[in-house]
Amino acid sequence: MSDWTVYLSGEIHTDWREQLVSAARDLDLPITFTGPVTDHSASDDCGVTILGDEPSPFWKDHKSAKVNAIRTRSLIDRADIIVVRFGDKYRQWNAAFDAGYAAARATPVITLHEPDLTHPLKEVDAAAMAVARTPEQVAQLLAYVIRGELAR
Amino acid sequence: MSDWTVYLSGEIHTDWREQLVSAARDLDLPITFTGPVTDHSASDDCGVTILGDEPSPFWKDHKSAKVNAIRTRSLIDRADIIVVRFGDKYRQWNAAFDAGYAAARATPVITLHEPDLTHPLKEVDAAAMAVARTPEQVAQLLAYVIRGELAR
Amino acid sequence: MSDWTVYLSGEIHTDWREQLVSAARDLDLPITFTGPVTDHSASDDCGVTILGDEPSPFWKDHKSAKVNAIRTRSLIDRADIIVVRFGDKYRQWNAAFDAGYAAARATPVITLHEPDLTHPLKEVDAAAMAVARTPEQVAQLLAYVIRGELAR
Amino acid sequence: MSDWTVYLSGEIHTDWREQLVSAARDLDLPITFTGPVTDHSASDDCGVTILGDEPSPFWKDHKSAKVNAIRTRSLIDRADIIVVRFGDKYRQWNAAFDAGYAAARATPVITLHEPDLTHPLKEVDAAAMAVARTPEQVAQLLAYVIRGELAR
Amino acid sequence: MSDWTVYLSGEIHTDWREQLVSAARDLDLPITFTGPVTDHSASDDCGVTILGDEPSPFWKDHKSAKVNAIRTRSLIDRADIIVVRFGDKYRQWNAAFDAGYAAARATPVITLHEPDLTHPLKEVDAAAMAVARTPEQVAQLLAYVIRGELAR
Amino acid sequence: MSDWTVYLSGEIHTDWREQLVSAARDLDLPITFTGPVTDHSASDDCGVTILGDEPSPFWKDHKSAKVNAIRTRSLIDRADIIVVRFGDKYRQWNAAFDAGYAAARATPVITLHEPDLTHPLKEVDAAAMAVARTPEQVAQLLAYVIRGELAR
Amino acid sequence: MSDWTVYLSGEIHTDWREQLVSAARDLDLPITFTGPVTDHSASDDCGVTILGDEPSPFWKDHKSAKVNAIRTRSLIDRADIIVVRFGDKYRQWNAAFDAGYAAARATPVITLHEPDLTHPLKEVDAAAMAVARTPEQVAQLLAYVIRGELAR
Amino acid sequence: MSDWTVYLSGEIHTDWREQLVSAARDLDLPITFTGPVTDHSASDDCGVTILGDEPSPFWKDHKSAKVNAIRTRSLIDRADIIVVRFGDKYRQWNAAFDAGYAAARATPVITLHEPDLTHPLKEVDAAAMAVARTPEQVAQLLAYVIRGELAR
Repeated sequence: MSDWTVYLSGEIHTDWREQLVSAARDLDLPITFTGPVTDHSASDDCGVTILGDEPSPFWKDHKSAKVNAIRTRSLIDRADIIVVRFGDKYRQWNAAFDAGYAAARATPVITLHEPDLTHPLKEVDAAAMAVARTPEQVAQLLAYVIRGELAR
Repeated sequence: MSDWTVYLSGEIHTDWREQLVSAARDLDLPITFTGPVTDHSASDDCGVTILGDEPSPFWKDHKSAKVNAIRTRSLIDRADIIVVRFGDKYRQWNAAFDAGYAAARATPVITLHEPDLTHPLKEVDAAAMAVARTPEQVAQLLAYVIRGELAR
Repeated sequence: MSDWTVYLSGEIHTDWREQLVSAARDLDLPITFTGPVTDHSASDDCGVTILGDEPSPFWKDHKSAKVNAIRTRSLIDRADIIVVRFGDKYRQWNAAFDAGYAAARATPVITLHEPDLTHPLKEVDAAAMAVARTPEQVAQLLAYVIRGELAR
Repeated sequence: MSDWTVYLSGEIHTDWREQLVSAARDLDLPITFTGPVTDHSASDDCGVTILGDEPSPFWKDHKSAKVNAIRTRSLIDRADIIVVRFGDKYRQWNAAFDAGYAAARATPVITLHEPDLTHPLKEVDAAAMAVARTPEQVAQLLAYVIRGELAR
Repeated sequence: MSDWTVYLSGEIHTDWREQLVSAARDLDLPITFTGPVTDHSASDDCGVTILGDEPSPFWKDHKSAKVNAIRTRSLIDRADIIVVRFGDKYRQWNAAFDAGYAAARATPVITLHEPDLTHPLKEVDAAAMAVARTPEQVAQLLAYVIRGELAR
Repeated sequence: MSDWTVYLSGEIHTDWREQLVSAARDLDLPITFTGPVTDHSASDDCGVTILGDEPSPFWKDHKSAKVNAIRTRSLIDRADIIVVRFGDKYRQWNAAFDAGYAAARATPVITLHEPDLTHPLKEVDAAAMAVARTPEQVAQLLAYVIRGELAR
Repeated sequence: MSDWTVYLSGEIHTDWREQLVSAARDLDLPITFTGPVTDHSASDDCGVTILGDEPSPFWKDHKSAKVNAIRTRSLIDRADIIVVRFGDKYRQWNAAFDAGYAAARATPVITLHEPDLTHPLKEVDAAAMAVARTPEQVAQLLAYVIRGELAR
Repeated sequence: MSDWTVYLSGEIHTDWREQLVSAARDLDLPITFTGPVTDHSASDDCGVTILGDEPSPFWKDHKSAKVNAIRTRSLIDRADIIVVRFGDKYRQWNAAFDAGYAAARATPVITLHEPDLTHPLKEVDAAAMAVARTPEQVAQLLAYVIRGELAR
């Protein structure tokens, strides 16, 4: 079976990506994982660092957000599946934005969040193909989807 | 010039839609405004009320969110422009989801929020064609876009 | 709010379409209902009656099925929503085909069937935005989706 | 000539896939065959096994059907050709759904079924590019399509 | 049922369009018929007459063909159904081009030609939803497709 | 024949639009003409006037250009045909941008310019369906395309 | 520079494909050439040989034409460029069909024919990016397009 | 991370492409750079050199522009990102055309120009994801987008 590409969107201040990648590696899954830049300050500063300073916080954010979008849109467009992680901190509107973007392109979405976010995330979950609680569950989903084998 | 359809996404617990519709009416703009169901309890209960009860909160939410999505996706798909309002309460992930969905379909997005949300909304604003602070500004944007006349 | 078009696919030997249209009329919903030709013998014979006889049953069916497809594809392509009814008689593969066709085009699907068909229809229901049991429920779903009002 | 991908949809309780793959191997065809998970119980249980149990049979089915859909949609989207097998047992609505989905995406469909299913499958066959009776015929079709050589 | 648009492509030196339009009018069908410019010399000369003469026959033809294409592509793009007529005179490659163009856009094609053209037209007929012999048959097809009533 | 929408892109400091609209009115053509805001200072100032001042000329331009793009993209998306006028003054990169945008969407483009711009406009003209020299020629093209009648 | 795929459509009773492939090989171009089955009798018989005989010539042709279409549509869909050859024999409606199909998908078309076919092919040539007279010219076009080097 | 393709559009009389490619090579970026034919006379003459002379300058330009478009459209269609360079000489309408074409296809655009072109390029810049001043900045943008590492 050919290789798969999975984009990991959302929360950047916990190690859920590492957990998921590690779990997938343990299962020897043929997956290329992609994602946004997770170095928070690089992500915030890339626009002004590369293209020149901005006195206004709005345009500083704007410049960086667009540079980041070159990466995120390109990688989401190439992904077979997108996993979107919501945590309890910060507003994470970019994660919900990515989910909407992927849904409009008919790319399957897997959400990953705690049960206490069920109500505020109901519209996002309704557009998802699976709602997981742990990175290990996501790894098992990917193993099942790609290999067709269900570990019990 | 032919009529326009504008979808109003986001915050449902303030009267920003009424303010915007009223301002547009004062300007006599040829706009059909659409939007999600803004009666919060109807929106939460539509699934179980129509299709039968669910013991689990997850599936209750899921059923309602999907029924609401029939409406919201259909209306966003028909809209020429989508206005997305973010307020300071609640997480409003569905608003960000709508913005991502519209952006992927190349429907122009206007965001509407206070300056203090600039940083967390930077990715959404980066995908928007205009970032407004008040419903009156949105009405003026629509007047300019549709009529080509700039009030000074 | 502008008018809606709803395509009614599936079972043709019961009066579920009449029940649904009547319920929608009682609610005064601004819907144009469309659907396949429900006169079974006309549907079976249209190809050979108009275009000339065929000795082989396969090509007789083929000719008619293609003529019917001009109608059904055109009307599904124009529909805002498609309702797909599965009954307990016949195999109704055309209903499932329509659901798959609509799903690929991102047209919202509402399925309508008894609970005992839940397991064999699980893939179709998984692609649906709502699973209803009665034509009245479908009418209420449409009323909610179009008007945003929830009768309790 | 470059490699081809062929998705094998439908009937999972006979060995038609093995027969077809074996016939294609004998012909040394450069084909990657894909398909749904054919372990019936894995397919039924994947949702609850990975993501947690459900008391309701409907949601159990729903969860699994969506997980399976991540796989089936992704693989159908990548396929050059889809073969859809209908047998005499079970209702196989998912096979007809796949055919409709592929037809809407303009992916060529080959159906595979006995002559006694001609009438109920007429709409599906009308959307197909070929209607075969045996896996060997499908292998010969693929050999002709890919190599351009006709064995007589 | 809403109105339909049917584009009439192909042969311009017989009165098949008039026969078809007349037959459709007798049946009171809600159809807007469109088609290419059927005044042969206007069609040949439009480019140089409006935009200036060309010494080379190639560029004279090129200029006119492109001006005609503004019309034909626009009208085919708007059509619900395209009827393509092939006669026994001239090469009519533009008719086959239109059929290929419509097929790629999934617009249903009805071909209209005598049986002696069956072999050279087999690829075009294979992409058609119906193959008719007379304008009256096309009118009956349209009546059935639009009204769902089969005259016997 | 149904109505047509024609978008008039490019040069805003001459009266070519008025000449074209007037010529079309004389021919009684069923056309809705649309276009960008042609009040130069309104077009430059709309962003800062409505949404608030900017100290930097770059962001002032940026804000206005995006607000104008809501209008221009929406109207080009709705147009059946786009006419793009290039004059001898200014760089008019936005006109060439519009032509590229329309070409990618397969909307027919008519260019309007003097012969001395032939060489620098060769890529744009190569993507056009007609290259006209005067607004009267464009009106005659539209008359021919819409009515199928060629004035000689 | 990455590899290119070029589909060779049209005339099958002369050796223009061999001439073109040979000329491209001499230029060492990184091209995969594809095309329809050029064994005329295999192309005519594939349907009935593989899938079973047909008493009617129409359905014999129909079966084969659809089987051939699985190949031709798939290969045209994968092609970067399509070359369409028209000769002076036979009607070659399938070649014009392929050109229309490719044009609708925005795949660049190069036509190849003698000057005496200019008038009947004017609509097809108008949709082409280049009109060549010899296979050697096509090879030189491909060399220029791919390598960017012009032999003089 | 997989390889990227970046198309370099615009100005051909300075060495900005070489500077950018060299800067990217220094950073060891996994990028395939593509672009138009930058040999000006080859680009002007390709049509008549390969396909035969034209007495009219218009058609000479037209023939070459279409041959070049086979290359440029194909390469832009394959690109992940397009960089568009505007200089102070010539009108460079083809660069703006490419930007519009890419924007309509949602391919991310990076513009590269001096600050004095800000006003005339405002519509193009408004559609860009980044506006750079030097090839080195573009190389740094690509390094950040592809590797996610920000050099400070």
